[in-house]
Amino acid sequence: MNTEWIAVDWGTSHLRAWAMQGSTALDHAQSDKGMAHVGPDGFQAALLDLIENWLPGAPVDVVACGMVGARQGWVEAPYSTVPSEPLPDVPIRVPGSDPRIRAFVIPGLKQTTPPDVMRGEETQIAGFLGTRQNWDGVICLPGTHTKWVQVSAGEVVSFRTFMTGELFDLLCGQSVLRHSVGPGWDEDAFAEAVADTLSKPEQLAARLFNLRAADLLQGQAKATARARLSGMLIGAELAATRPYWLGQQLAIIGAEGVSQTYATALQRQGAFVETANATEATLAGLALARNMTRQTA
Amino acid sequence: MNTEWIAVDWGTSHLRAWAMQGSTALDHAQSDKGMAHVGPDGFQAALLDLIENWLPGAPVDVVACGMVGARQGWVEAPYSTVPSEPLPDVPIRVPGSDPRIRAFVIPGLKQTTPPDVMRGEETQIAGFLGTRQNWDGVICLPGTHTKWVQVSAGEVVSFRTFMTGELFDLLCGQSVLRHSVGPGWDEDAFAEAVADTLSKPEQLAARLFNLRAADLLQGQAKATARARLSGMLIGAELAATRPYWLGQQLAIIGAEGVSQTYATALQRQGAFVETANATEATLAGLALARNMTRQTA
Repeated sequence: MNTEWIAVDWGTSHLRAWAMQGSTALDHAQSDKGMAHVGPDGFQAALLDLIENWLPGAPVDVVACGMVGARQGWVEAPYSTVPSEPLPDVPIRVPGSDPRIRAFVIPGLKQTTPPDVMRGEETQIAGFLGTRQNWDGVICLPGTHTKWVQVSAGEVVSFRTFMTGELFDLLCGQSVLRHSVGPGWDEDAFAEAVADTLSKPEQLAARLFNLRAADLLQGQAKATARARLSGMLIGAELAATRPYWLGQQLAIIGAEGVSQTYATALQRQGAFVETANATEATLAGLALARNMTRQTA
Repeated sequence: MNTEWIAVDWGTSHLRAWAMQGSTALDHAQSDKGMAHVGPDGFQAALLDLIENWLPGAPVDVVACGMVGARQGWVEAPYSTVPSEPLPDVPIRVPGSDPRIRAFVIPGLKQTTPPDVMRGEETQIAGFLGTRQNWDGVICLPGTHTKWVQVSAGEVVSFRTFMTGELFDLLCGQSVLRHSVGPGWDEDAFAEAVADTLSKPEQLAARLFNLRAADLLQGQAKATARARLSGMLIGAELAATRPYWLGQQLAIIGAEGVSQTYATALQRQGAFVETANATEATLAGLALARNMTRQTA
């Protein structure tokens, strides 16, 4: 295997790496050594564990995006301020790394008003825009913290973060609703909950406990409760983001399951939605960042 | 000490008991043997641990309210259906109890549409109404699961449950916001967040992550973030309950701190609010239930 460079997506919970030749992935590895599970001095070791077999001997570039660039990360890569291109600055070189690698971390983006931050999504956005000419519109990146990003003339103009995924996980796993929510899905219940919450977002707080009571009193199926909960939370997000998606060109970049869930909800509201593969966008963005490091080398 | 009967408030997380003479509490004891921490056969032992010293020898009545009457509790006390008096039925006798006690559990209330349930609050409501003649209005019982209860002509007409307290605890303790929220309070930040969320409830989902970003980018004080989070969640609850409190006679029954938080938020919206002591209401309600058991003995 002839590894030319190494692409890394290093988030809070996971570390993923690819052995790259140009824009082609030769191999892939991952571990649970996300930011949250690595001590201040453990970053290089956690990475080498994963990529050591790929190293050809001569130093190779390692380009990483994600929370690894936070203050508590491998090296702090200070945010760029929007409006801005998604990758306006050359990635930050990690000092004192193993002689077999030259490691770089991509800066995130910040917004002053309202305050908001992203780390990792800027790379996916750059990768997505790199494959399209003059794409203007709104990108939704669903996940633990979903981002809605307004793009114009190659720049991120504004963005908003939603804790929808994290709220869903907390309510399903830790709250009293855990007794009433279970695996499976009910598409009609999801669609109805999205529509209800979009039309009366002020009633959201009143509806959550219904999921528990409907189980106790009516034996509501746990899959139905799960789909309704998802529909309520995504409906609340769509109520807040209406100006972002109503009548806009719209792309969703995310894991397949959650992207499809968002796409279905948006299509039922009459939105026109394109979905893009998250890994492809990440690798394309990391390749763009790698080219920036070479131009300044 | 001459214990005449024993009052018990047995919820999900705590067990509280009082040695009573008429309506006077002679002594009080509590433990963490709530429903969630007691096995199916452990109820009587958990209770006796707490009250054994009070038992005079001759059998005494023990009257309990709360989750202890759930299907997984000491004995199932099936719900009464609203509209209904708060204590329409004689408490359920626990079979086969220790010869030194005659134990009873108070049934909860259920509502068919929208589905909802309560266990414990019906006793506080009965106790509160027992001290007032012809009280009509709305009672708010804030806590882990806040209840809003419409009362007319001595009956609970309808009610709604809100997971506000549980959501606050999950977001403060388990979510990414835990890094940005800390002890203390900021009354202005709370009031502003309540007002913002009441006026634009559809924006709630967009505002939660601001608490994290405002810390990262502006060093927002952790006490301010905590008050803002509380204001957002209580604001969402007040948006959903507006028909319950707008222009209604209003009473809050709860622990002192949380009752004051709700009272402040409601007073700023022009509501007239009375607060009542939760323990007094519980004991008054348990005393009424005990009289019902004596009339049928």
